[in-house]
Amino acid sequence: MYPDSLKQLIESFKYLPGIGEKSAERFAFSVLELDEEQVDMFSNSLKNVVNSIHKCPKCNTLTDLNLCNICSDTSRDHHSLCVFEDSKNVFLFEKLGKFNGKYHVLDGLISPLDGINPEDIGLGSLISRIQEEDIEEIILAFKSGIEGDTTALYIKRILGDLNIKITRLASGVPIGVDMEFVDSLTLERALLDRTEVE
Amino acid sequence: MYPDSLKQLIESFKYLPGIGEKSAERFAFSVLELDEEQVDMFSNSLKNVVNSIHKCPKCNTLTDLNLCNICSDTSRDHHSLCVFEDSKNVFLFEKLGKFNGKYHVLDGLISPLDGINPEDIGLGSLISRIQEEDIEEIILAFKSGIEGDTTALYIKRILGDLNIKITRLASGVPIGVDMEFVDSLTLERALLDRTEVE
Repeated sequence: MYPDSLKQLIESFKYLPGIGEKSAERFAFSVLELDEEQVDMFSNSLKNVVNSIHKCPKCNTLTDLNLCNICSDTSRDHHSLCVFEDSKNVFLFEKLGKFNGKYHVLDGLISPLDGINPEDIGLGSLISRIQEEDIEEIILAFKSGIEGDTTALYIKRILGDLNIKITRLASGVPIGVDMEFVDSLTLERALLDRTEVE
Repeated sequence: MYPDSLKQLIESFKYLPGIGEKSAERFAFSVLELDEEQVDMFSNSLKNVVNSIHKCPKCNTLTDLNLCNICSDTSRDHHSLCVFEDSKNVFLFEKLGKFNGKYHVLDGLISPLDGINPEDIGLGSLISRIQEEDIEEIILAFKSGIEGDTTALYIKRILGDLNIKITRLASGVPIGVDMEFVDSLTLERALLDRTEVE
């Protein structure tokens, strides 16, 4: 029904998360409205991303350099290390602009039900980094929930002998959200971790 | 903050309709999970679409052939012609599979407020087609509303002398939709165009 190249483009857009037939069609038709320059940039950037982006050998963040620009930045505080389950979150934190330490990205979280065990998430490189570098605090910035909790507890246990502070991001009621929309687990945690009004 | 190629890909995804920063980032990260083959197809199909898709010289539909496969299909009923404001709708109708006539696509609808006058929407080629071909009915499949109405009335007027039937798609309550969610203009039209129960 569609011309071949249009059909292929629609199929390509369906690779994207959450994109079904209708949206893919809308996207493909919108490409026909773009300048040739824009389409070239779009097409080339797809190939460039796959060819140039890899994981930083030190912190596991996505980068197009030999060593990512955070690892090679000597002006950053190398005493505190923020640990993520996914390299997307590094960019989220950098955008926030409130953390000046270094980062480390694991290959996911421990999840025995999914067959992901402690040896599968790249803890070895985190531990050797902590042993080699002069790190005073690691901040575990995992998503809340059973997998994040398990991974945090496991890391706490294996690093117990080293004299470093291990913290997690606070859980609680999101700012500006009405109490009635907050789930009961979050409310329970918010109550448990309540802070003194100063 | 992002590596250059990733940043360019995020910017590219923002060309798509309704896609902002957050969705563009999500799409760009998802590209990193694709096979090399899939990315090649995606990247190539973008360029191919722009290079190969053009408008059919006869009916103005998008095609990658000299004459689109509907215009060149001799088995279709060439007595009835369905007229659209946008070539996307041709594919919608073909998918429906309930119309076996031919198509013609205008360059939009008459909209004096937007400076789009009768001479801007390519009516000339529609009229010469009607004069040259043995057309008995034209079905105006425009969106409901003032622009569609104006364009339909204009076409009715300029084709008045020719002995052809001019029809429009029915307007009314969409099937399966609760009455309370239907706007008042649509309800009014549905009342006006009520049909006898048989």
